[in-house]
Amino acid sequence: MRIIVDAFGGDNAPLEILKGCELAVKELGVDIIACGDERIIRDVCGKNNISLDRIDIQHTEKIIPVECDPTEVVKSYDDCSMAIGMKMLANGEGDAFVSAGSTGAVVVGASLFVKRIKGIKRAALASIIPTTTGCYMLLDIGANAECRPEMLVQFGIMGSSYMEKIMGVKDPRVGIVNIGSEETKGLDLQIIANEQMKHAPVNFIGNVEPRYLPENCCDVAVTDGFTGNVILKLTEGLGSSLGNEIKDIFKKNFLSKVGALFVMDGIKNFKKKMDYTEYGGAPLMGISKPVIKAHGSSNAKAFKNAIRQAKEYTQLGIISQIEASLEELKIKSQAN
Amino acid sequence: MRIIVDAFGGDNAPLEILKGCELAVKELGVDIIACGDERIIRDVCGKNNISLDRIDIQHTEKIIPVECDPTEVVKSYDDCSMAIGMKMLANGEGDAFVSAGSTGAVVVGASLFVKRIKGIKRAALASIIPTTTGCYMLLDIGANAECRPEMLVQFGIMGSSYMEKIMGVKDPRVGIVNIGSEETKGLDLQIIANEQMKHAPVNFIGNVEPRYLPENCCDVAVTDGFTGNVILKLTEGLGSSLGNEIKDIFKKNFLSKVGALFVMDGIKNFKKKMDYTEYGGAPLMGISKPVIKAHGSSNAKAFKNAIRQAKEYTQLGIISQIEASLEELKIKSQAN
Repeated sequence: MRIIVDAFGGDNAPLEILKGCELAVKELGVDIIACGDERIIRDVCGKNNISLDRIDIQHTEKIIPVECDPTEVVKSYDDCSMAIGMKMLANGEGDAFVSAGSTGAVVVGASLFVKRIKGIKRAALASIIPTTTGCYMLLDIGANAECRPEMLVQFGIMGSSYMEKIMGVKDPRVGIVNIGSEETKGLDLQIIANEQMKHAPVNFIGNVEPRYLPENCCDVAVTDGFTGNVILKLTEGLGSSLGNEIKDIFKKNFLSKVGALFVMDGIKNFKKKMDYTEYGGAPLMGISKPVIKAHGSSNAKAFKNAIRQAKEYTQLGIISQIEASLEELKIKSQAN
Repeated sequence: MRIIVDAFGGDNAPLEILKGCELAVKELGVDIIACGDERIIRDVCGKNNISLDRIDIQHTEKIIPVECDPTEVVKSYDDCSMAIGMKMLANGEGDAFVSAGSTGAVVVGASLFVKRIKGIKRAALASIIPTTTGCYMLLDIGANAECRPEMLVQFGIMGSSYMEKIMGVKDPRVGIVNIGSEETKGLDLQIIANEQMKHAPVNFIGNVEPRYLPENCCDVAVTDGFTGNVILKLTEGLGSSLGNEIKDIFKKNFLSKVGALFVMDGIKNFKKKMDYTEYGGAPLMGISKPVIKAHGSSNAKAFKNAIRQAKEYTQLGIISQIEASLEELKIKSQAN
């Protein structure tokens, strides 16, 4: 399997990206095509003892800046490392594409260069969010700030396929994020999506309230990109600030430091469980080929995990399952 | 000062409400008018040794059920304990009103019986959210699922008055909750509100991202009621599930239990800091007289704190400050 990588996307590019690629070759047995300036890539790899074994370089000169308007990836930056990588994916020169670059540009580029799955209204960015007893998939987390009800239904179908195939959840429970459990709660978006989701080929459990998301109340939580982004970022923010608070409690004095020793294992396990980097990046679901958006601040380990995710996404046939579910929904809708 | 209380609102009414009233009389020196069935109130107080000293009873027979459509409070339930209490407030028979009953009914009843402050488009429910280093006010948390930009501006003015007068924050920092800090981020609601807020008589600091809310990035966070409710409920949910997780780590075995003893003080302080019931209820801001919505599951202590909040809201002149700020905004707008 050949994974195409944007070697110049993200805060820590190209060093951590290239290190992540090296790890992926060793641990996951994949081949890599790294898009970016060949001279710089060879230079960084040489200086940091990164092996280029099974890593091909596709030379490109431009890099799309994060602050750039996302549509520029198909305009004046259509020859940047991200754009070239996506075009190669579209042409079948690799099996999947991974970038830690600008989220907006990944969404626009993938939609226009690689194209959406037939019938999919909009691609959605999805994130796996750890909870104390497992995890759930949240989508959309920001590709579409505004959504229509039928988009939420498609998000349900896509999230369900992912959780079943990649996370091994049988019959994933799909819920619509809402401010109450009753069907009449929320805005038109949630009320209409609730009605439509009942006819979709997913295990729909109704509305889910944010209060219960951390308690594993569902396996897939669908929402518009604005609300999804708020949930993702607030979860990260609270996790980190509560974590720091706990750390401070232990650091307070000699006795508390002794206390910390007694629970070190538990704390370490907990931290590992809540570690986002373990889950890789955010799959851009609804695109006709596998595209993974790695976190902008990815280090080598996080980037390697994003490549693992790309590998699994490809191997486990998520896209064909989404296509089959869409077909089923279409037949059902026509029958009604 | 006379606080009117809905003795039959909330999950633990009337027992915990009446206990809360007794505490308020003793600790806060207020007089209470308790609205509800006189026979039941006397019976509950008698059986539980609750003193009715300085508590007058306004007999009403009906109670509005939580599952009832909120507008029923002004229709077939306009003689329920909540409606009667609000009418008494409107008539000047008391200084403030507190209920732990249905949120929707409190919003509708207050808007129609007590009326809004002149110029205020919509009343907003506000919540004080504890953070590790302080707290911030979030509004709206659910009175208006959908909002227009000018409503967010008024929320900013109202929240600013509250934080300054009641919480003693000098020149409170007001932010608009958004998925990015740039002015161009978000939906039309946030983009237009950002432009309008610049002309409001508040210390506007621009957009605030949910990631940084737990780190005290602002003193007042304004948002539509849907997003606000999501933020409030997710914050509560994450706090409680992470708290339980920490508890489990300490309970795991003998050594971890020993460890717990060394940090008990720190954990207790932390719990107190993050305890919502310390802050009372949610003020319904923008109403022409003080109305406080206590949490539906309020116990006596939480209800007493909601009464304290009502007392301070009345004493510290929040409403006249809001009126003055609205006037200032109006003059500024006319000048532009």
